[in-house]
Amino acid sequence: MEIGPLAVALGDPAGIGPEIVAKAWDAREAQRLAPFFAVGDRRSIEAVWQGPIRQIASPDEAAAHFADALPLIQISDTGPIIPGQPDLAGARCALDSLELAAGLARSTMVGGLVTAPVAKAQLYAIGFAHPGQTEFVAERCGVASANTVMMLAGPSLRAVPITTHMPLREVADHVTVDLIVAKARATDRGLSRNFGIERPRLAIAGFNPHAGEQGAIGREEIDLIIPAVEQLRAEGIDIVGPLAADTMFHTRARAQYDCALCLYHDQALIPLKTLHFDEGVNMTLGLPIVRTAPDHGTAFAIAGENKAHPGAMIAAIALAAEAARNRLVHA
Amino acid sequence: MEIGPLAVALGDPAGIGPEIVAKAWDAREAQRLAPFFAVGDRRSIEAVWQGPIRQIASPDEAAAHFADALPLIQISDTGPIIPGQPDLAGARCALDSLELAAGLARSTMVGGLVTAPVAKAQLYAIGFAHPGQTEFVAERCGVASANTVMMLAGPSLRAVPITTHMPLREVADHVTVDLIVAKARATDRGLSRNFGIERPRLAIAGFNPHAGEQGAIGREEIDLIIPAVEQLRAEGIDIVGPLAADTMFHTRARAQYDCALCLYHDQALIPLKTLHFDEGVNMTLGLPIVRTAPDHGTAFAIAGENKAHPGAMIAAIALAAEAARNRLVHA
Repeated sequence: MEIGPLAVALGDPAGIGPEIVAKAWDAREAQRLAPFFAVGDRRSIEAVWQGPIRQIASPDEAAAHFADALPLIQISDTGPIIPGQPDLAGARCALDSLELAAGLARSTMVGGLVTAPVAKAQLYAIGFAHPGQTEFVAERCGVASANTVMMLAGPSLRAVPITTHMPLREVADHVTVDLIVAKARATDRGLSRNFGIERPRLAIAGFNPHAGEQGAIGREEIDLIIPAVEQLRAEGIDIVGPLAADTMFHTRARAQYDCALCLYHDQALIPLKTLHFDEGVNMTLGLPIVRTAPDHGTAFAIAGENKAHPGAMIAAIALAAEAARNRLVHA
Repeated sequence: MEIGPLAVALGDPAGIGPEIVAKAWDAREAQRLAPFFAVGDRRSIEAVWQGPIRQIASPDEAAAHFADALPLIQISDTGPIIPGQPDLAGARCALDSLELAAGLARSTMVGGLVTAPVAKAQLYAIGFAHPGQTEFVAERCGVASANTVMMLAGPSLRAVPITTHMPLREVADHVTVDLIVAKARATDRGLSRNFGIERPRLAIAGFNPHAGEQGAIGREEIDLIIPAVEQLRAEGIDIVGPLAADTMFHTRARAQYDCALCLYHDQALIPLKTLHFDEGVNMTLGLPIVRTAPDHGTAFAIAGENKAHPGAMIAAIALAAEAARNRLVHA
């Protein structure tokens, strides 16, 4: 049984989204990519790419055309599109693309959703009331965003930051045993569902240097992490830690777990981007649909210059297809 | 002009220090290591290694024997030595070795000091009053340890943690503009002196996710880092930042600077050990002598089992020799 084509929202039309989606299509054979279709304004692609586009009306037309042209579902025209020059009309275009793609992804004929980068400041200016695309997608899926988990994935590392865009000095007071337990549970389920891992091996990082050295360098391990680990183990979840954060990301250490749980943004993102800068994927666990995104921004500064590296978009498409296949098998 | 031989203190006799120093001697030709001599109890080496040892009385004898045997300056006998079983006599042995090696390293006939790992808890139990070997060496050199800088170095990254073994929640209140400035100045001077870099390029990491996004995710960048960077630039130091910590350690980013300045332990150690786990070197800047150490511990659990990887000790010896040569040239 084949998965349905993936819906790829083009993101901000003035960013690098259209270019990297088109370049991913160029790489479809070399990378053996599953069929996907773009959702957005075709002019944003035509401004930066000369390849064939095939406008389609429904996802079920995508697979038949994918070999010969980039299938695209057109949204209503917005304003003029100039790469590298974001504006409010572009934000409207990005939001329309996201809304349509997310809606289509909820149908069983679509395998999953991939989202290209948007400019949050522009979205807020047109009244977008969610912190980011993830929360918007969660709402459209009827899931509280607090119950979703952001996982970053590269070829040799998966990592979940338990807190994300929060001042570092606030993290210690924000993290609770319950928060760690909830994120670990969702990660455990998400790894099983999306990657077919029967009993995922989780590893949680310490918060302090050397994981606190039994309380000598901070107490978050003793007060928060160890109680959470004990509770999770009692539930049958395979989790080790707290591990010293600096010695858990080298090659041999990474082989010991399927996903690292990290307490703060940079604890997860530093190793991920140090190892896999051009191929990092952001995957949302806890949704009824598969959803991935390249782990980078709109890069307006290089938009329209044919300089954008499609590696992370290709990886996001490949990972979404892998997850969609696993969901079919384990459904 | 040739550098003098390096003095290598064997560290705790029950740890992996003696084994990795002996293995480094085994690798002297393959790794083109400059002459060095061990300082410690020869029984600690004989317990784990079958190669030739040549006892010497003075560093000036080391070079003549280095090709054929591991030169060693013997300290007074302590108690029995059993690999993997640390005790107070072993701590005394480690301290005697360090004291003698540090003293020898202050003479012009020795190129520099390399220290194998010690067990701090054991040292404290025999009355050792310094936080670690670095502070002891600094005092013996007549330098306040506050004026030294710990730099971690691997083949493709140098990183200085501005704070080290401190609970993460205390870091934000501990860091000051003056502290950043002092550490950056010492790093700048140390890179010139030890590596012959005329105008070192420094890069400082932000403290918060995305370097705070202009204050939207924390104010340490605005209140502390940016003022420090402005002051350092006014002094003529080449420093950029604050940079988003997650995007400054991938291959292309690392090519843009000679040393990363990090606000907390794991911000420096995660990328360093993720990239260079088996070859990380700890170098002390700001001393009148060259001093390096492998960036790992005593590993009592594997001592005496011939499992210890000498990569970091070899790298520490090579880096000390490189720094000693540069000091000769630039003296």
